Amino acid sequence: MHATTKRVIGVDLGGTNIRAAVCDEQGARLEHAAQPTRAMEGPEAVLKRIIDTIRRATERTRLDEYKVGAIGVASPGPIDPDRGIILESPNLPGMINFPLKARLDAEFGVPTFVGNDANLAALGEHRHGAGQGIKNMVYVTISTGIGGGIIADGQLYLGWRGFAGEVGHQTLEARGPKCNCGNVGCLEVLASGPAIARQARQALDAGRESLLRSLAGSAEVTTTMVAQAAEKGDALALELFRNAGFYIGLGLVNLLHILDTELFVLGGGVALHTWDFLYPSISQTLIRNAMPSMRDGVRVVQAALGDDAGLVGAASLALDGLESQTRVKSG
Amino acid sequence: MHATTKRVIGVDLGGTNIRAAVCDEQGARLEHAAQPTRAMEGPEAVLKRIIDTIRRATERTRLDEYKVGAIGVASPGPIDPDRGIILESPNLPGMINFPLKARLDAEFGVPTFVGNDANLAALGEHRHGAGQGIKNMVYVTISTGIGGGIIADGQLYLGWRGFAGEVGHQTLEARGPKCNCGNVGCLEVLASGPAIARQARQALDAGRESLLRSLAGSAEVTTTMVAQAAEKGDALALELFRNAGFYIGLGLVNLLHILDTELFVLGGGVALHTWDFLYPSISQTLIRNAMPSMRDGVRVVQAALGDDAGLVGAASLALDGLESQTRVKSG
Repeated sequence: MHATTKRVIGVDLGGTNIRAAVCDEQGARLEHAAQPTRAMEGPEAVLKRIIDTIRRATERTRLDEYKVGAIGVASPGPIDPDRGIILESPNLPGMINFPLKARLDAEFGVPTFVGNDANLAALGEHRHGAGQGIKNMVYVTISTGIGGGIIADGQLYLGWRGFAGEVGHQTLEARGPKCNCGNVGCLEVLASGPAIARQARQALDAGRESLLRSLAGSAEVTTTMVAQAAEKGDALALELFRNAGFYIGLGLVNLLHILDTELFVLGGGVALHTWDFLYPSISQTLIRNAMPSMRDGVRVVQAALGDDAGLVGAASLALDGLESQTRVKSG
Repeated sequence: MHATTKRVIGVDLGGTNIRAAVCDEQGARLEHAAQPTRAMEGPEAVLKRIIDTIRRATERTRLDEYKVGAIGVASPGPIDPDRGIILESPNLPGMINFPLKARLDAEFGVPTFVGNDANLAALGEHRHGAGQGIKNMVYVTISTGIGGGIIADGQLYLGWRGFAGEVGHQTLEARGPKCNCGNVGCLEVLASGPAIARQARQALDAGRESLLRSLAGSAEVTTTMVAQAAEKGDALALELFRNAGFYIGLGLVNLLHILDTELFVLGGGVALHTWDFLYPSISQTLIRNAMPSMRDGVRVVQAALGDDAGLVGAASLALDGLESQTRVKSG
């Protein structure tokens, strides 16, 4: 079989939607399908929809010409990458110790590889997005939570059990607010979307004047409303984004000092949609706080693949898995 | 030549002493020499003493039987590992962009490899100390400063330009005291030896009762005095170590979450000499603050090689360099 005919499936298993794409070796998405996850219906119903989404994505692929060799799945929460088990997932109720690899292997008769969604988004951005050709980068997703993935010497770094890259759970304020993870003053509890909205509500409760009062009316202030107020030049909203940018910048300084990172790629809804409000403060903090010898030449950029980073990374994981199996067989 | 006859030189270039050892492949120090660095006399004088120390360490080695194949040097401050250049070194005045590799290559006619001392201490502990057989560990030295080295998937991780492992320069208090590095609230400015002594002086100035008043007399309080007071059960001294242990613990939690580390090895004077005062607080912070799924099974231990970690790591670097050259030549 000719090398360019290699095809893999990337799957992004999200709390809201399941998406699957047939990809070639260049990360191009050839065919695509999606449907709601309906996570509340439980693991077996979700598995059925994963299988159905993959079938729909592949049915238009000329399988006689392009053989699908492997499946990669990006899944939220901690994964056992060797066994392809979803250990737990806050957004997928009941998906505890779920043997996703074994179930999909059996269904499709091709090997399945499972990874954490933020880790695979890092891999996707590294292979086909903003980090191409960069050997040492960190991807940070800023959204409902803050997570990430580390590319070390050109490889996705997984750590001891595959859990590495929890960059949102670094303490930046030792006496700061409690984080959902159990730690205190984490980057996530200081600068995620919900953190920005919480800080807005606290400021309004404390009597601060802001457009947010009329924008929200009797509803609860959301991150989207804070972004709308910032667009209109609202002082409080701009200050909240500056503050979040300061903490994100400090988080990047820590990562730079620990990892000597050349490139930071920021993705996730908050980074992608409110970049102009966050970036000046992120950049200023890096310049002011990083060691001069380590700061020089470091870049901070937006993710290039947007919401598709995890999907493309899942396809890359499948390709890598396929290649290492081929090597083992022929080696 | 038989494999077991391979010998390398490890050199620890410190601000106070230069030490050199002839080592075998198991990290055993066969011959050893040392002399004061006298850094104030400048780079050329220091280089002469490095050469002299190496000569003294090798003169008792039966060179007819055991050929020395390479030299490794552990040096403080940032290094260009590819070119073997000391970029700068706070403890070696004038050693700026100093081509140590080129100078020693020319002198001894064998290849020299240069690394950062904390990075090489990590390598030494990994190969021949507390971290043997562990694939993902972080070494942290707690002394006048706080530094470290990362072992990732069994290899010393250097990062983009070779500067990785500055684990003492992670912000833990975003509004904390200014650090020498330019950043704020770094682990180093909160929990190093000088930080503990500074906090003791501040507490005394604020009127706290403590044995430290009589221990210091009219002299300035030192970390050693705080340790002596803690030995005698002094409440302030014990509190200062607990506080330092809390910050060290938070630093380890951050590293655990970012890197999914199996083992933390703590070295340096403060960790080695005041372990009993620091460890309970470090351990408690890990248990209380780390994510339950990531904390499970993680260990924190003292360095096994003590002051020799850098020396042994330098020898390991030399051996690695020798082997990769042999591979290139025969490959």
